[in-house]
Amino acid sequence: MVLPAEFSLIARHFRPLAGPGALDLRDDAALLTPPAGRELVLTADAMVAGVHFLADDPADLIGRKLLRVNLSDLAAKGAVPLSYLMTVSTPKNTPETWFAGFAAGLATDQARFGVTLLGGDTTSTPGPISLSLTIIGHVAPGTAIQRLGAQAGDEIWVTGTIGDGVLGLAAAHGRLADPTGYLLDRYRLPQPRVGLQLAGIASAGIDVSDGLVQDLGHLCRANGLAAEIIADRVPLSDAARAAGPDWREACLTGGDDYELLLAVPPARSDALGTAARYAGIPVTRIGRFHSGPAKVMVRQASGEALALTKGGWSHF
Amino acid sequence: MVLPAEFSLIARHFRPLAGPGALDLRDDAALLTPPAGRELVLTADAMVAGVHFLADDPADLIGRKLLRVNLSDLAAKGAVPLSYLMTVSTPKNTPETWFAGFAAGLATDQARFGVTLLGGDTTSTPGPISLSLTIIGHVAPGTAIQRLGAQAGDEIWVTGTIGDGVLGLAAAHGRLADPTGYLLDRYRLPQPRVGLQLAGIASAGIDVSDGLVQDLGHLCRANGLAAEIIADRVPLSDAARAAGPDWREACLTGGDDYELLLAVPPARSDALGTAARYAGIPVTRIGRFHSGPAKVMVRQASGEALALTKGGWSHF
Repeated sequence: MVLPAEFSLIARHFRPLAGPGALDLRDDAALLTPPAGRELVLTADAMVAGVHFLADDPADLIGRKLLRVNLSDLAAKGAVPLSYLMTVSTPKNTPETWFAGFAAGLATDQARFGVTLLGGDTTSTPGPISLSLTIIGHVAPGTAIQRLGAQAGDEIWVTGTIGDGVLGLAAAHGRLADPTGYLLDRYRLPQPRVGLQLAGIASAGIDVSDGLVQDLGHLCRANGLAAEIIADRVPLSDAARAAGPDWREACLTGGDDYELLLAVPPARSDALGTAARYAGIPVTRIGRFHSGPAKVMVRQASGEALALTKGGWSHF
Repeated sequence: MVLPAEFSLIARHFRPLAGPGALDLRDDAALLTPPAGRELVLTADAMVAGVHFLADDPADLIGRKLLRVNLSDLAAKGAVPLSYLMTVSTPKNTPETWFAGFAAGLATDQARFGVTLLGGDTTSTPGPISLSLTIIGHVAPGTAIQRLGAQAGDEIWVTGTIGDGVLGLAAAHGRLADPTGYLLDRYRLPQPRVGLQLAGIASAGIDVSDGLVQDLGHLCRANGLAAEIIADRVPLSDAARAAGPDWREACLTGGDDYELLLAVPPARSDALGTAARYAGIPVTRIGRFHSGPAKVMVRQASGEALALTKGGWSHF
């Protein structure tokens, strides 16, 4: 019997990604024996061409970004990644080289982050490429970091550098020079902070996907706290500094950083430093939570409040 | 702080659907304590407007179909549904009434099938509405029905009636009269056969989503067996019979039935009958598996082979 094109496409490109329980992607469902004595952590994200990535982005980077934005959500929980399911809707004229590149990108990051494909669905679409990925990780029961849990007095820390994602998008659109390509790389290929020990250290956390100020606002609302951060302490990459002061607000409010934003009690900041060195992930203290009402204050080093014209990114 | 529109939309329409572990959809990930001593069964399906449903289908029926096509995959495994994650990508001008209707449909079927929302993502899209759903169910370890497992001599059984889905789509496009609306209803709202006891009864199984002949072909390939079915034994609804003999082939090869197609050893057909009566789900024996090579033969009652012009549905 001749296999229909859909199934041979799956066999050629996606079957090599399949891991334990995936039944070689020859079935309609996957089987998963949950790791004994662990709590599962699950999250799903969608990515649409023209919204979350550029239609002409290299297919391997699209695959890696799809996996990495979900890995970033697991990282914010302090979870160990396990496996994922994925749906891929593509226009009928999508060339086979696109699928080959997309799968090659996933294979690279599967090896890097220790996850395997469990299942999914491929369909056609009359619109742009639309992707979704559901990832499964695990934690010791009761230890997942959540948005809820920060206390007044907790310090505010971030990993890595902030703002490269939004500047990379501006560079892609020709609105900003990016001579080294560093910013565009950061937009296209986030670095999920998987492996940073957070249990017993952070009181709350979130990954910065909608913009530092907006995501900090999520922590404020969840905990009924005010947050005060010092703009000059927000870590910027050399490339972001080179963009100059006109782009400073964009760095604070733009999306796509996929760094971690953490609430850490002062008594545990040393432990965070140790965990960060162990994981090889830079961390920077940028402010502190205070009693509510929920509000984000961004101050200059002088203490003067900075008025932001844009709070962050919403899809509607 | 004023919530961005995306988050208030989630709060109004999707938060009421959230179940245990969903953290009220206020977080980026969900927590799931797997049922003790059970194996998880996971599957994901995507649905795109204009491909899997009609753009002007009532929003509540779109939500219910999205959930039900995934429930159908769980039903084919003999799994108990537990919870689901969902991604929803909609054009920017999608009215709030659409979200309200979509969520109301999900609420109806959550109650009916005993599942709750665990998490997901909402985004905008410049294309048609694109949905994906990942569902999680569970079975006693080692008892999930798979495509693999059928033996020569096993009987071929189906639940319900076959072909209503494809005829309903033809009716929606004005190519077929549907005076009672029965066929269109069957296309829009599949009946996942959740609750039919299959463990210890079926040796293999699949749900009929791509068309009876094509899905039977999947079972043949998985097991290296030939399948022989008698066209006249394939159960048709009154409405499908009324469509006349010109539509008979469409019934055998069209998609969207979401009935179960099962391999059952003859010694267990009585047990299947008992399980079917208990669940209130009609089952019909339509043929038998033979030694390979993998092939689907459709015969008339006279024994003459029926030549089909179309094997089933592929998205590529």
